[in-house]
Amino acid sequence: MNSRIVIALGGNALGNNPKEQLLAVKNTAKPIADLIMKGNEVVICHGNGPQVGMINLAIEKASKCDPDISGMPFPECGAMSQGYIGYHLQNALKEEFLKRNIKKSVVTVITQVIVDKNDKAFRNPSKPVGFFYTKEESSILEKERGYAMIEDAGRGYRRVIPSPTPVTIVEEDIIKILVDTGNVVIAAGGGGIPVIQEGHSLIGIPAVIDKDFAGEKLAEVVDSDYLIILTAVEKVALNYGKKNEKLLDTLTVEEAKQYIKDGYFAKGSMLPKIEAAIKFVQSKDGRKTVITSLEKATEGMEGKTGTLIVNDKF
Amino acid sequence: MNSRIVIALGGNALGNNPKEQLLAVKNTAKPIADLIMKGNEVVICHGNGPQVGMINLAIEKASKCDPDISGMPFPECGAMSQGYIGYHLQNALKEEFLKRNIKKSVVTVITQVIVDKNDKAFRNPSKPVGFFYTKEESSILEKERGYAMIEDAGRGYRRVIPSPTPVTIVEEDIIKILVDTGNVVIAAGGGGIPVIQEGHSLIGIPAVIDKDFAGEKLAEVVDSDYLIILTAVEKVALNYGKKNEKLLDTLTVEEAKQYIKDGYFAKGSMLPKIEAAIKFVQSKDGRKTVITSLEKATEGMEGKTGTLIVNDKF
Repeated sequence: MNSRIVIALGGNALGNNPKEQLLAVKNTAKPIADLIMKGNEVVICHGNGPQVGMINLAIEKASKCDPDISGMPFPECGAMSQGYIGYHLQNALKEEFLKRNIKKSVVTVITQVIVDKNDKAFRNPSKPVGFFYTKEESSILEKERGYAMIEDAGRGYRRVIPSPTPVTIVEEDIIKILVDTGNVVIAAGGGGIPVIQEGHSLIGIPAVIDKDFAGEKLAEVVDSDYLIILTAVEKVALNYGKKNEKLLDTLTVEEAKQYIKDGYFAKGSMLPKIEAAIKFVQSKDGRKTVITSLEKATEGMEGKTGTLIVNDKF
Repeated sequence: MNSRIVIALGGNALGNNPKEQLLAVKNTAKPIADLIMKGNEVVICHGNGPQVGMINLAIEKASKCDPDISGMPFPECGAMSQGYIGYHLQNALKEEFLKRNIKKSVVTVITQVIVDKNDKAFRNPSKPVGFFYTKEESSILEKERGYAMIEDAGRGYRRVIPSPTPVTIVEEDIIKILVDTGNVVIAAGGGGIPVIQEGHSLIGIPAVIDKDFAGEKLAEVVDSDYLIILTAVEKVALNYGKKNEKLLDTLTVEEAKQYIKDGYFAKGSMLPKIEAAIKFVQSKDGRKTVITSLEKATEGMEGKTGTLIVNDKF
């Protein structure tokens, strides 16, 4: 295949605790190694919703019990989650490479991403992070801590923080060098640590950049051929889970925009994936996005399954 | 000067909480930027004792209060501390570079370090991590959690974990590429995430590699000219803090070995620095180690202060 690919991995696929994650990443490593064995160059971006929420909450809880422990701001928790998830991913990939005799190095780059301080997202927190709560617990958190809470896809209530659009990847030069010299790079984990620029300073802010948008930005930066967004489903669907569900093999930008307009894609779920897909395929001629499941990644790349988003119909 | 330098930063210099650390790294960035402006290439290694202890303890405490939070193993906490400290360091260095118009990128590489599973350190835990406790608290932790505890330099009691010797830096290829292409690299933070090799697997283990030994290994890997170990004092002393204190300007390997034999250097404090210094200057002709304070780093490099460790007297 010999393409350059940015893979955006769903954070929920990593598992909810270190033991689960250590097992999950071993499965994640296999289709990625498959893609590399077929001659592709791979860059990996991943989510961190549950992990960063857990880290933030745990340290916050501990600081209430122990005056020696101070709370941990959200950007620092994001940096921790990049280290934590990156370590597991690079460890699992290295193991898979050693097993298959793939001579590749794999690296996690701690990544800051500049966002615009005037991004409208700051007026409307929308990104769910951390655990699920009952309605009652949720009300208490809103009152006592001033958190913004939402009901999340029938699974309970979660804290939401702003989700601004990525503008620039601070470490983009580093990432380009590492990709160009043949390494497998894990970058912009959790969408990157969001920072705003004030003069010469980059200031971390409590927000989470959507990993699909960060993956899209990453794909532009490394001049990728493909953006592969891996999620829980094999193909994008209209009327997902309903009687009249329709699975999509291909989507042109025009079609995708119309479906968005018609409200077919769920906010915070399929919508950002489709929006990232559109942005990437429109950024340069010939760029393609595939949305599929982790297990079907290779087949998706070969056009055998998944949903291919392109600028024009073939 | 135009030398390649590996700097080993003391973990305690980073501050004990995120606010302190964010300020401390701004000071740390200045002498490092000075060295870069004088034409040197810089690689940075740092300690993480207080930070990794805090992360481990906080998540452990939180997991006792909340069944949804699981404990976090030590290697994962180490990975988190690399992300947390690396983010602050690279952020502060970038700011300093922008202020001075230094066109350099700076990157934190999540680093695993292979140790020997038969290392004798596993039979004798010696590395203090986390908070200081009273004698009474210490006894409870020994009994209830099976921790090994020691009295630490008159400052109280601390948990100790094994401190094995670094054998191989897993991400060494990556680090070499980044240094050779002119970037400022932060690597092997906290001495690296300790892993043992079992077949094709690299398995994280609860241990802390001394950051001075990890820095030494890093200096060998990147073929560094200098290893600069920054600590709380400007020069290495014999009879430190006593009436007959003698500050050392230079130390040959032979002298250093004799002083070690005579018990002049404190275990877990100056001793590993001197041992790392000896190892580095003996690894290749012309390699030098300087031990000095952060503030005196540039002057130390210029031979104006600090303690220079060399293979032979000038």
